[in-house]
Amino acid sequence: MVRIRKSIEDVQEYIPGKTIEEVAKRYGVRPENVIKLASNENPLGPSPKVVKAIKENATLANRYPPADAGELREALSKYVGFPPDQIVAGAGADGVMDVVTRLFIEKGHEVLIPIPTFPYYEIFARACGGTLRFISRDENFDVSADDVLSATTKKTKMVIICSPNNPTGNQMSVSELKKILDEVNVAVMVDEAYVEFADFSVTPLVREYENLIVVRTMSKAFGLAGLRIGYGILPAKIAREYMKIAPAFSVNKLGIAAGIAALGDKKHLHKTQEIVKKGRAFLQNNIPFKTYPSQANFVLMDVSPLTAEEVCEALMKKGIIVRDCSSFRGAGNSLIRVSVGTSDENQCVVGALREVSS
Amino acid sequence: MVRIRKSIEDVQEYIPGKTIEEVAKRYGVRPENVIKLASNENPLGPSPKVVKAIKENATLANRYPPADAGELREALSKYVGFPPDQIVAGAGADGVMDVVTRLFIEKGHEVLIPIPTFPYYEIFARACGGTLRFISRDENFDVSADDVLSATTKKTKMVIICSPNNPTGNQMSVSELKKILDEVNVAVMVDEAYVEFADFSVTPLVREYENLIVVRTMSKAFGLAGLRIGYGILPAKIAREYMKIAPAFSVNKLGIAAGIAALGDKKHLHKTQEIVKKGRAFLQNNIPFKTYPSQANFVLMDVSPLTAEEVCEALMKKGIIVRDCSSFRGAGNSLIRVSVGTSDENQCVVGALREVSS
Repeated sequence: MVRIRKSIEDVQEYIPGKTIEEVAKRYGVRPENVIKLASNENPLGPSPKVVKAIKENATLANRYPPADAGELREALSKYVGFPPDQIVAGAGADGVMDVVTRLFIEKGHEVLIPIPTFPYYEIFARACGGTLRFISRDENFDVSADDVLSATTKKTKMVIICSPNNPTGNQMSVSELKKILDEVNVAVMVDEAYVEFADFSVTPLVREYENLIVVRTMSKAFGLAGLRIGYGILPAKIAREYMKIAPAFSVNKLGIAAGIAALGDKKHLHKTQEIVKKGRAFLQNNIPFKTYPSQANFVLMDVSPLTAEEVCEALMKKGIIVRDCSSFRGAGNSLIRVSVGTSDENQCVVGALREVSS
Repeated sequence: MVRIRKSIEDVQEYIPGKTIEEVAKRYGVRPENVIKLASNENPLGPSPKVVKAIKENATLANRYPPADAGELREALSKYVGFPPDQIVAGAGADGVMDVVTRLFIEKGHEVLIPIPTFPYYEIFARACGGTLRFISRDENFDVSADDVLSATTKKTKMVIICSPNNPTGNQMSVSELKKILDEVNVAVMVDEAYVEFADFSVTPLVREYENLIVVRTMSKAFGLAGLRIGYGILPAKIAREYMKIAPAFSVNKLGIAAGIAALGDKKHLHKTQEIVKKGRAFLQNNIPFKTYPSQANFVLMDVSPLTAEEVCEALMKKGIIVRDCSSFRGAGNSLIRVSVGTSDENQCVVGALREVSS
């Protein structure tokens, strides 16, 4: 066969969560009765303004979106308080982070990643030919600036920090992040996909540091996972280079319309934040296993001495999908992540976990 | 500033065509009176089945699409007559070609591209750290297998051929392509974005060669440019590697629903093909400049001794946007590409060109 690049051959395939259809088929449950709390989606659904915008734009599906998602970037600019030339948009936060990684990483470069965390960073880095250096988080899943700095070598060209961290839910403090930014002269990418559910954001630091890139998404708090809209807040100089290699038209036309509509419905956002914070507390107080504090729209639990696999299997038989974290590097085999759902869904998953644990 | 990869700094920014809004603003024309024949979009719009599918799925915008676009790949599989494990789908043909290029190209590798052609191949290749080797097409914009083979060096790892070629409209024959595939041991990617308007496809050759990747799109004949759906037909072994590094969820949820609906409306496809073939002949017979034969939904003209810039400027003043090809490498400064529009639009552009030429 024609030769594939060596660094690609070494990439491990990403294992996504099970879909409703898969579980319904395998366990003989009706799809409409399956509860999916595995992908940290918005339990309220999209804003009614979004639904309206999509319907109004449906007949324009044959037209290309603007190449640079200009109008959406302007709306995002207002939302985050940075000028449009410091905002880039792409096909989901994944799409944005992939392009950012490409700006800095090539064969021979090292990428530092505290684990356990979102597995995709590793795939981006390897696809660029980069080498991974993993830092183990402590028993509370915290990672200190010192841990990061002492793992840095001459080859390190990028540090990727997920905060709030997926799947653990904890944030890195502003002071720890500043310590890292003060010391390293490489790109630091912070994934703030869950920031709307957290107590603070590190975005203001983009004004102070020329090597900080914050990536966010409209998939979670704005309920637009299906439309693939991610964005970055970054120094204008890096944004210019980003625009040169990012695929044009990477945010689709309905996504642009929906994104602008979602940013215009603060009520829906606040309702989402409220329902998530309430549901998160309910899950933390009622799940019959050790849970961890969370600044995100999910809760992590440790089901040991049971394994995540057996608990997830037992839940799927009841038509409930949660996320087995065993495929997350460094997560062991007893961690499960459950998304905050509607009040009914939360009660349902707690009830099922009680049965499993008794 | 933190160091961006050298090969990225050398990338030239892509210059997209002017948008309706830009032209309306600049020339004081009402946006609804602007005719855009610059992006080879479907003049009929999307199929009514597509519009229905989008509206029906709008409330599901908060849910992630399936990671591998499975159902859409099954529908594409039936359309092209290859099994689903030989089909990959991505965010537009651009998205697919970007991932394919990444499978093969890294620093030190060469990519062979006959020019003038679609400028994006160059960006993908440079973003991977590759070096470009351009082959000039002849006076009819043809390129022979011998031209390609004699430009091949030890460093060549990929050949990219657009066929029908954008912006020239001509196809490479099956026998010439076979000559290349028989001789080279590197990846050959053929971009068939416009194949539904052509006399033949080279897709059947994917059964014979383990190094041929054909990339297509739903943006043109299927009228889904706004939704970003591209796909590849390729050997299963390469498809597996592709799936490892391709961003998950790269086709959005509405795109998947719309794509399946579009593939189910053969009537709309045939109507599109008919209107394009008729309109293409009309443009070729009535444009008052030298035109070239076309197997695509656009016609290329040479306006010399005028320049493309002055003719495009004159048309924009009349509210008509066509594509100045001067930014396409090797295209000179007198080539203009005009998309086939509706019968009214075609008459309008011909009338305007007659005024300019007289």
